[in-house]
Amino acid sequence: MQEIKIFIFYDIEQDSIRYKVSDICKDYGLERMQYSGFTGHLRKNLREELYLKLKKTIKKANGKFIILPLCEKDVKEIKECINAVGKK
Amino acid sequence: MQEIKIFIFYDIEQDSIRYKVSDICKDYGLERMQYSGFTGHLRKNLREELYLKLKKTIKKANGKFIILPLCEKDVKEIKECINAVGKK
Repeated sequence: MQEIKIFIFYDIEQDSIRYKVSDICKDYGLERMQYSGFTGHLRKNLREELYLKLKKTIKKANGKFIILPLCEKDVKEIKECINAVGKK
Repeated sequence: MQEIKIFIFYDIEQDSIRYKVSDICKDYGLERMQYSGFTGHLRKNLREELYLKLKKTIKKANGKFIILPLCEKDVKEIKECINAVGKK
């Protein structure tokens, strides 16, 4: 089964559960690209597995997450801007 | 030109600039779906315009944003989980 680029973004109030979510994302080989956002490549079955694991993890929390799969054509159209200014 | 579903997620330290970014997203008819995430439909030329506007807005900030376009096929594969538990 083909690996596809995915993005996960989440909004979770409780710190402990948010940390668990980020640990799970790392377990699946995903890389943090925003404070509450990860990206990487996953096959569909692992995407499903990850979805169920995260769903279970946030069961007792106020929160949400979304898993976005992007085909190669869409990946080419991504526009990203990363900016770091000097801190005093 | 065809409208396509897009997602924007951002990570911006300064409150005032983060608010500006969310205001701009609203100006483009996008809807908030996470604390720092918006979605909606935009044609490519408006996506480019929005990218340049946001880039200019965060110029003096520590921050980043990403615009993800999703074709109809990818939209069907989105997995989202929204959870709200009662608060004491």
